[in-house]
Amino acid sequence: MAEFLSKHLPLIAVLRGKYGKTELRGDLIAGLTTAVMLIPQGMAYAMLAELPPIVGLYASLLPLALYSLFGSSRQLAVGPVAMVSLLVASGVGAIAEAGTAGYVAYALLLALMVGALQLVMGLARLGFLVNFLSHPVISGFTSAAALIIGMSQLKHLLGVDIARSHHVHTIVLEAGRRLGETNLISLGIGVGAIALLIALKRFAPNFPRALVVVVAGTLAVFGLGLDGRGVAIVGEVPAGLPGFELPRLELDAIEALWPTALTIALVGFMESISVAKHFARRNKYEVDANQELVALGLANLAAGVTRGYPVTGGFSRTAVNAQAGARSGLAGLITAGVIGLTLLFLTPLFYYLPKTVLAAIIMVAVFGLIDVAEVRHLWKVNRSDLALLVLTFAATLGLGIEIGILVGVGASLALFVVRSTRPHTAVLGRLPGGEVYRNVDRYPEAETLPGVLILRIDAQFYFGNVTFLKQTLETLIASAEGQTIHAVVLDASGINNLDSSADAALQEILSDFGDRGISLHIASLKGPVRDAMKRSGLWAKLAGRRTKTVHASVLAAIAERDAGDDPGAAPGASSSPCHAA
Amino acid sequence: MAEFLSKHLPLIAVLRGKYGKTELRGDLIAGLTTAVMLIPQGMAYAMLAELPPIVGLYASLLPLALYSLFGSSRQLAVGPVAMVSLLVASGVGAIAEAGTAGYVAYALLLALMVGALQLVMGLARLGFLVNFLSHPVISGFTSAAALIIGMSQLKHLLGVDIARSHHVHTIVLEAGRRLGETNLISLGIGVGAIALLIALKRFAPNFPRALVVVVAGTLAVFGLGLDGRGVAIVGEVPAGLPGFELPRLELDAIEALWPTALTIALVGFMESISVAKHFARRNKYEVDANQELVALGLANLAAGVTRGYPVTGGFSRTAVNAQAGARSGLAGLITAGVIGLTLLFLTPLFYYLPKTVLAAIIMVAVFGLIDVAEVRHLWKVNRSDLALLVLTFAATLGLGIEIGILVGVGASLALFVVRSTRPHTAVLGRLPGGEVYRNVDRYPEAETLPGVLILRIDAQFYFGNVTFLKQTLETLIASAEGQTIHAVVLDASGINNLDSSADAALQEILSDFGDRGISLHIASLKGPVRDAMKRSGLWAKLAGRRTKTVHASVLAAIAERDAGDDPGAAPGASSSPCHAA
Repeated sequence: MAEFLSKHLPLIAVLRGKYGKTELRGDLIAGLTTAVMLIPQGMAYAMLAELPPIVGLYASLLPLALYSLFGSSRQLAVGPVAMVSLLVASGVGAIAEAGTAGYVAYALLLALMVGALQLVMGLARLGFLVNFLSHPVISGFTSAAALIIGMSQLKHLLGVDIARSHHVHTIVLEAGRRLGETNLISLGIGVGAIALLIALKRFAPNFPRALVVVVAGTLAVFGLGLDGRGVAIVGEVPAGLPGFELPRLELDAIEALWPTALTIALVGFMESISVAKHFARRNKYEVDANQELVALGLANLAAGVTRGYPVTGGFSRTAVNAQAGARSGLAGLITAGVIGLTLLFLTPLFYYLPKTVLAAIIMVAVFGLIDVAEVRHLWKVNRSDLALLVLTFAATLGLGIEIGILVGVGASLALFVVRSTRPHTAVLGRLPGGEVYRNVDRYPEAETLPGVLILRIDAQFYFGNVTFLKQTLETLIASAEGQTIHAVVLDASGINNLDSSADAALQEILSDFGDRGISLHIASLKGPVRDAMKRSGLWAKLAGRRTKTVHASVLAAIAERDAGDDPGAAPGASSSPCHAA
Repeated sequence: MAEFLSKHLPLIAVLRGKYGKTELRGDLIAGLTTAVMLIPQGMAYAMLAELPPIVGLYASLLPLALYSLFGSSRQLAVGPVAMVSLLVASGVGAIAEAGTAGYVAYALLLALMVGALQLVMGLARLGFLVNFLSHPVISGFTSAAALIIGMSQLKHLLGVDIARSHHVHTIVLEAGRRLGETNLISLGIGVGAIALLIALKRFAPNFPRALVVVVAGTLAVFGLGLDGRGVAIVGEVPAGLPGFELPRLELDAIEALWPTALTIALVGFMESISVAKHFARRNKYEVDANQELVALGLANLAAGVTRGYPVTGGFSRTAVNAQAGARSGLAGLITAGVIGLTLLFLTPLFYYLPKTVLAAIIMVAVFGLIDVAEVRHLWKVNRSDLALLVLTFAATLGLGIEIGILVGVGASLALFVVRSTRPHTAVLGRLPGGEVYRNVDRYPEAETLPGVLILRIDAQFYFGNVTFLKQTLETLIASAEGQTIHAVVLDASGINNLDSSADAALQEILSDFGDRGISLHIASLKGPVRDAMKRSGLWAKLAGRRTKTVHASVLAAIAERDAGDDPGAAPGASSSPCHAA
């Protein structure tokens, strides 16, 4: 039993290991610290998702506790995060009006769907899918999402009513038109909160700054009666723990929500796993991607039945948790406990909390995500990856966030595939005095051999590029100035696999070369390629013409040729005896 | 002017080259022979496309002449073919009733669209796209299409009315239910024609067998008055050349037809280019894929404005053309001339031609395309390619021909991409007495070195697999039994490219290894990878730790280590002086 629990509940394994007073004290302090940060953040992100602030607290209770039991990270702080909240607003906003009961119900359904998807992906070990989100795509997507999120909070900061939109220019135009309606007190509080947050971040980085602005803002509104002067406040927050409730499984809604659910499942997991890995490396332990998916899946399922909304592991909160000394999931359980107590006893304190302060917290959190450094870096390093970044950024801003990320992933895969159809090839020559062969275009001292063409294919050789490679060979043979090529040596060290199209192409080249009196030699064949050749019979046909090194192939090609042809050119003369191929 | 014509009209270039009486005689005989074959085939394939037989002749006039002028193949015989005819029936049949004027008009529009697509693809040099149709996908698709085509002709063979369907089982069931209505005379003529075609193919392969069965069938119906006994005949065929006529460009129809147009543009081109290449190789000249696209595009545009339907280069007809001695496009011009004369003077002869004979011609032509040998071959050689073949075959039969080929292409690309996320890796050891390093799992004699891990990555290293490779390294380092790894040598000979995600991963590994006291060496870096590293600064960080060969890297790793550690294990002692890395 203890064995079974240890295997499936990583927390048990950790607590049964080297865990003493020091660790317990670390977890206790970290759990309390993180709770102090999570309460205002949870409410703010729920507002970003167009949900009542209390939903953000519900989502930080049972989901957090479940992750702490099942997750393989010891520091990860799970709960509402900005990106997922934006995705919720976008997906649910498309089928229900914000502020209605239906909207809240669909957010619950969405959490359930995300949970189910992540659980299934974890059990099916599909964690690798997240790799298709490449660096530039993530960067472009995150920057655009941060811009949309920041802009979406303008209405709370200005205290005016701006229709929700994912088009930044629409928001800016609308805000400009309604600038006259600005509630200057709201704006003042918001800008003050932003300034305070930035200042505290710089000068007192360990201070619970979100709590400070929340308390200061609440006291100001309460003390000066600013809610009577048009400052929007959070208002009545129901006390008590959330009840269990299974959302209605409407088929139409499920169909409409599933692209959003899939995006959240993947993007949320990606954000979470990269944070988890970062802190695992620092603390010298391993996280298991598929176990993480299972734990996040359970957390989201829990969110779906306890009136929460989709959650994942967030960067800033995890950093605080780790810094405060978290050593195990126990810290998360303690955080959840504090949230539970807050729900039971402290909700009346949030009544006068001004929304503009929550907006300030969101804006400061996300503007740091706009990644200009990566743009500058890619401009120097890799222009085609920069193009992917810009494309994803533009598509996310212009076409919406789910389509934006799809465009990015699609384009990066298409680029990978299209590139593979025109792989790099190199004509090789021998470096003086050795057995090393290198690209003649890059090593001018490399010597080619009259009548022998040595070609290296830098590619996965597969159906997508067989034609290109046949053409490359033909062109090179035809353009060998004046000389007749009598042997072609293929350096196969870059060929990692051989599908049936590639095999057929080699067979064709072999028989075609046979007709034309050209002998084909293949060097440095790798294991998987050798196996494929053995099955297809190509291996036998190449008998005596496949060697371990290019040099051995060249020697074989020379030996095969008429002895009287041009002996001076043979590198065999200078070949060292150390070669045993 | 002559220069300009030679460049854009390959025929002019050929005729201005070595072209004399022998060549002219060859073209003349080939042109006549091909025409004799094309007339019955053209009519039969038009019937397969559910079009009036005359449309098949119209499609063999101007399109053929234009291809002959612009095409780079000297033997290719362009005209109606079975696969494209089936695609026309499927695509146009979805938006119009066969036998109506609208149906014929949409077939014209489709030809125009195919022509435009091919022309644009040729000018944009997109010929490489055809490579995404891999061997197994083509084989599965062709076999399924052959089955569907053959079955679709059952109704003509039996002389009963069976509703058109692309579901083979529907056709067979329907035919079974209506077996009682079979016209035994039709069936007798059809089966006789099939037997005659097969016999002639075997015993007199150079005989114009399609013409023989057409003449015999026509004479039988005419002489015995069989049309009065229920045998369906071609009937009135309008005499004269087709007029020019631009089909109406209905936007709705264009939208509905474009997937079919794209499929025909690609599948038709693929069929044509593979035939063209086959005969170019035999006759020792080059075909240019993009010029072929242009020529086929012009041919289809011509078909669209002269009452034809989509055409491409066909295998059997090209084989006859080449065998009869075609030396240039002049043969095609002569064929087109004969078709023109036929349209002007011989159409009355087709009146009594029984449709069952045309069905027999189609069935014999396509059943040879069912590719059982490839299935048997892949069963032995490559099971995952066999799975692709079977999937494409099943999808084509079950979901329809356009979707079938899409499923095949999609699955083969997905397999390629997914495979690239879990590439093959190999731990290397040194073969005794040399400087060659090989996979220790395959070469038990290869010696590993205590404390040094040598890893070869057999992959395009890109965003899709950075995580997998980081994990592989970690696992290998952790599982080095008892020993502490102090150096890792990456054999980069299989890495052909480096995107920004891969670069970031290497930077991360480098700094992580640095923290842990492991030195990272990289051997055999290729040009494009070196360039990427120089731009990103990784090149400088690796100074002194990048070498030309694995052996040099191993020597460097040993040298870097404490001299007193374990000198006996160093391979430097036996290292030959010939090494200059």
